[in-house]
Amino acid sequence: MSVFFTSRWVDVPDALTDVGGDLLAPGFQAAGAAAGIKPSGEPDIGLLVGPPETVSAVRFTASSTVAAPVIITRDRCRLDAIQAIAVNSGNANAGTGRPGLDEAARMQGGASIASGTSEERVAVCSTGVIGVPLDGEKVLRGLLLAKGALRKDGAADFQRAIMTTDVTEKRCSVCVELSGGQVFITAQCKGAGMIQPNFATMLCFVQTDAVLAAETADLLLGVCVKRSFDRVSVDGQLSTNDTAILQASGASGIVVEPESADEALFGQALDAILRQLAIAMIADGEGAVRIGRVVVRGGHGDAVERAARGVANSPLVKTALNGGDPNWGRVLQAVGGALPGPASIPVDITIEGQLVCSASAVTQYDAEALSAAVKRDEVEYEIALPGDGFETELFFSDLGHGYITVNADYTT
Amino acid sequence: MSVFFTSRWVDVPDALTDVGGDLLAPGFQAAGAAAGIKPSGEPDIGLLVGPPETVSAVRFTASSTVAAPVIITRDRCRLDAIQAIAVNSGNANAGTGRPGLDEAARMQGGASIASGTSEERVAVCSTGVIGVPLDGEKVLRGLLLAKGALRKDGAADFQRAIMTTDVTEKRCSVCVELSGGQVFITAQCKGAGMIQPNFATMLCFVQTDAVLAAETADLLLGVCVKRSFDRVSVDGQLSTNDTAILQASGASGIVVEPESADEALFGQALDAILRQLAIAMIADGEGAVRIGRVVVRGGHGDAVERAARGVANSPLVKTALNGGDPNWGRVLQAVGGALPGPASIPVDITIEGQLVCSASAVTQYDAEALSAAVKRDEVEYEIALPGDGFETELFFSDLGHGYITVNADYTT
Repeated sequence: MSVFFTSRWVDVPDALTDVGGDLLAPGFQAAGAAAGIKPSGEPDIGLLVGPPETVSAVRFTASSTVAAPVIITRDRCRLDAIQAIAVNSGNANAGTGRPGLDEAARMQGGASIASGTSEERVAVCSTGVIGVPLDGEKVLRGLLLAKGALRKDGAADFQRAIMTTDVTEKRCSVCVELSGGQVFITAQCKGAGMIQPNFATMLCFVQTDAVLAAETADLLLGVCVKRSFDRVSVDGQLSTNDTAILQASGASGIVVEPESADEALFGQALDAILRQLAIAMIADGEGAVRIGRVVVRGGHGDAVERAARGVANSPLVKTALNGGDPNWGRVLQAVGGALPGPASIPVDITIEGQLVCSASAVTQYDAEALSAAVKRDEVEYEIALPGDGFETELFFSDLGHGYITVNADYTT
Repeated sequence: MSVFFTSRWVDVPDALTDVGGDLLAPGFQAAGAAAGIKPSGEPDIGLLVGPPETVSAVRFTASSTVAAPVIITRDRCRLDAIQAIAVNSGNANAGTGRPGLDEAARMQGGASIASGTSEERVAVCSTGVIGVPLDGEKVLRGLLLAKGALRKDGAADFQRAIMTTDVTEKRCSVCVELSGGQVFITAQCKGAGMIQPNFATMLCFVQTDAVLAAETADLLLGVCVKRSFDRVSVDGQLSTNDTAILQASGASGIVVEPESADEALFGQALDAILRQLAIAMIADGEGAVRIGRVVVRGGHGDAVERAARGVANSPLVKTALNGGDPNWGRVLQAVGGALPGPASIPVDITIEGQLVCSASAVTQYDAEALSAAVKRDEVEYEIALPGDGFETELFFSDLGHGYITVNADYTT
């Protein structure tokens, strides 16, 4: 029984085994250190290093007000050959202008020395408060501390160093049985989905000892991010710092050939891991008591996407989810509002398998059963728009007092 | 000193006098009645009747899942000659399918008898819970009661009958000095901006005794709605029932000629009234402690609109506003998220006159003065995007515990 894969919305391939523990995929070492960037004194510098033959793939936030480390990594790195990753938490190094770029470059330089690789092979990531200068001296001291602490079972240390106000650790260690033998995939993720007051950002780092061509890594990461982190919303807010990096050390010697059954299997495993991490991220949203999944089907690609976003980001739907309230009128309203137009559209709404609204009109349904169903940990909403051929899904957290407490009650 | 015009964001023309009181513009009569649709027993049927020569203009919600009364009014009425308006509160008659359309048509028929005009000159409006059949018998009884209570000073009775969980009455009575003499404008509005759990919807009714051509009424209402109700957001949620109606009885005999100075003046007065009503509506949002205005200027029309919506609907910005927190990093993040793209854009952010962020980087600013300024009732955010030529504004409420209490804590 896996302790990591808990959601019914994740398909875990039979060939995958959740091994747990703090070991990284063979070839990788990691560490965390406390450099005094977080006022609490908790670990705030993470360093993760692979062997020279490491290949990689990277995805960044789509924001147009990105943080300095995103610019430095995106513009100065060999994104298909990231060997080391340096992360600081407690300060996003965003909204910091030219001095922020200088500090991110200095952080990259420091990590290059600490990991013994060239600067262009070092990705830098930051997460924390926006608009406050990053203290580069602290970062450098932290990187030197981390260098001395690098170890193969450093996953937990690294995880804790990249967390901000995350309540739960979001990491896993699995092995996957491919045709040529077993490979490992380990991953560490932080983020409570942009819902934190100053400590925003999603960061996700994945390591494997499989031999992957850079093109394969890029393809697999791209597809899996689209089905995981791109499909979650806590509050519709896009961060300045989001970064996901997949690294393959090749230490197993087991090659994942393009367009092979092994590639498909590896992809399914990566998909399961990233989906579960993304769901864990929204479940960790402050004040979140349950999470929702909205599936929209219909005849227009843009319409299903807009309807899904409209429902997932509707404060009315999210507060109903928080309250365990079956109020489907809010879902109907959110769909209509997301798809404005002069013509009325017939919308079907199914909640936890019960059709509650057909062609935009109330149906006869079992109110008692529905009421019980929406009080469980995961609630599924299915929406059918006219026509067919398109389908999308979105995972979302609820909206409750905890969100207000974190984001409004404490001023910065 | 006007008790109605309280916002610094409303320009009140000198020719306008706030007269207050319960009198409607000459020519109109109104009433409210309790028909038992609201479980509380409070008034829930409103009836408003003008003289046969009344001309009108109407605007509806852009939702594609509109309520039955919107469909009936939109499709069956002479929208330029609405003489009577029947409203029920406590039930939105939305998500009710074919039976809902039948009830809306019956309500129109009943109001036609009660007001002595033809059905095609009766607008029907509903506001309240979505997805519950409307009890048409109660509506008809209420309309008959209201018919017997119609009076010239019925503005307050009508106002109370159309309210749902509004805390404040949102109505006014003003006179405007035109070249030919004085005309009256009275208005009644309900709505706490779609933030209520079941009792959603904005309704606004405006009466004047000026002589307006239907085309003039339509032009003026269209322009003023665009600068008022179209520019507010409590929670980004579009209602199924929103309706705004302007009626002109012509009782004063004072003609407002197209493209005249009087038309401009009348338009300014109507603009001031609708903006103040819209601002009062968001200030009445549950849990709202202060309201914000975001002004975005820049070189691209679509970008300024998206940035303004992004900021006004950002839960992070709204909770900061609630907490009186000057956290401008959330504004920068909201703009970047609303305008995704590979290139970084330089964004200037000014809060209450202080430039806090220039070209997306923090500036030297007076943190103490800013901190005090954002704790006042109204907070203004100005955002400059690259280029110039376009400008838009949006008013928004904050997001606090009261919103959660109303929308999550009480299940339906």
